[in-house]
Amino acid sequence: MKKGELLYEGKAKKIYTVEGRSDVLWQEFKDSMTAFNGERKVSMPKKGEINVSVSEILFAELEKAGIATHFVQRTSPTEFISKRLKMIPLEIVVRNVWAGSSAKKFGQNVGEALKSPLFEMYLKDDLLNDPFVSTEQAVALGVVADTAVVEELKEQALQINEVLKKRWKAAGILLVDFKVEFGRLDTGELLLGDEISGDCSRLWDIDTSKVLDKDRFRKDMPEVMAAYEEALARLKASGESS
Amino acid sequence: MKKGELLYEGKAKKIYTVEGRSDVLWQEFKDSMTAFNGERKVSMPKKGEINVSVSEILFAELEKAGIATHFVQRTSPTEFISKRLKMIPLEIVVRNVWAGSSAKKFGQNVGEALKSPLFEMYLKDDLLNDPFVSTEQAVALGVVADTAVVEELKEQALQINEVLKKRWKAAGILLVDFKVEFGRLDTGELLLGDEISGDCSRLWDIDTSKVLDKDRFRKDMPEVMAAYEEALARLKASGESS
Repeated sequence: MKKGELLYEGKAKKIYTVEGRSDVLWQEFKDSMTAFNGERKVSMPKKGEINVSVSEILFAELEKAGIATHFVQRTSPTEFISKRLKMIPLEIVVRNVWAGSSAKKFGQNVGEALKSPLFEMYLKDDLLNDPFVSTEQAVALGVVADTAVVEELKEQALQINEVLKKRWKAAGILLVDFKVEFGRLDTGELLLGDEISGDCSRLWDIDTSKVLDKDRFRKDMPEVMAAYEEALARLKASGESS
Repeated sequence: MKKGELLYEGKAKKIYTVEGRSDVLWQEFKDSMTAFNGERKVSMPKKGEINVSVSEILFAELEKAGIATHFVQRTSPTEFISKRLKMIPLEIVVRNVWAGSSAKKFGQNVGEALKSPLFEMYLKDDLLNDPFVSTEQAVALGVVADTAVVEELKEQALQINEVLKKRWKAAGILLVDFKVEFGRLDTGELLLGDEISGDCSRLWDIDTSKVLDKDRFRKDMPEVMAAYEEALARLKASGESS
């Protein structure tokens, strides 16, 4: 397959067409790292490659568990071909442990385990700062047709959480929370899209709680990429042994 | 019945026991008006009386429609006896028209009608600034036992909306949105609590959109109490003619 024209450039990736194909896209992951809705931005060499490596492993794990994803094949260290989806403009978050914006909003202790996984949705809208949105609000805003769509997203997201939690645990890593995005094929089939990496997950060493994700960048901690590499290396090593 | 000891003093009311009775409370509504989580506070003579009058009319209207409320009887211009409830610490909001915090959060045009009434919940917690909360978050925080409780609150709130919308419409007033609070009797029965007034509703003249509620205070508009009196007078007049 051959890379076509640039369709979209976001904070972390560029999306191209594939020449002569309308059913797939060419995704290229950048080395730039941003936080606080793009207010902070730096270049982080190897980030694109590490994120694509982690995504490739986790997409394969999910497919094995029967969860359909948009991943087709890797074409370079920082690029992969994906099925072309009509994206649902929601960031779907699942939390296993209180952390991040919700811990702050509700005065919960960071690191405290939730009784059961918590499903959340945020509206993808940079101008509005990606606000939290309830099922009822998502329907009122026309982002989803009805509550049944949210139920479908919730079921998928909670299943994905079970698979990812187990996979990271095998690497000695606690999946605190993660963000995913979904889209649909022309047939209506719901597929997991975007990426799954340390950019959109909170990953803590199970024993030491060492942070192995983007929070190192948000919180000005050192060795951001070394932590990303560590998470990938542990993921790979645990895959080989299992 | 005789007023007992002070149990609670909030921004807008004081709650007392009733001597020799454990099943009812004595509610006294104050003339103080606050906004922005208490940051602004002034005295507004007659506010307590007007709010109790509006509440008395609307509670009666709701009871007539089969919706159980905590209202028992008025004991003075600014006081009434209520059934004693175990309150659910949620502010339940129903919106018919985009306005207030949600219009701002989601970039919607103030005054635009919603396709259908929007149900929202806010956690009653002054220290956290009463944050918006989804069904899943309310369960995770232990504020409600399960999603069935939220469904019960939603059904009640949407029924209340239909009754109130119609009643205000008879007075030539558009019910833009309102906030209510619920509680339970020892038997588990769900009752509407608190008050229903211009303090916790957005009320616009149907033809001119003249604001007849607390937004006059929030937005530094003149004649706040005159607008409250107008809403009450129109409510009374339309009740007599209907």
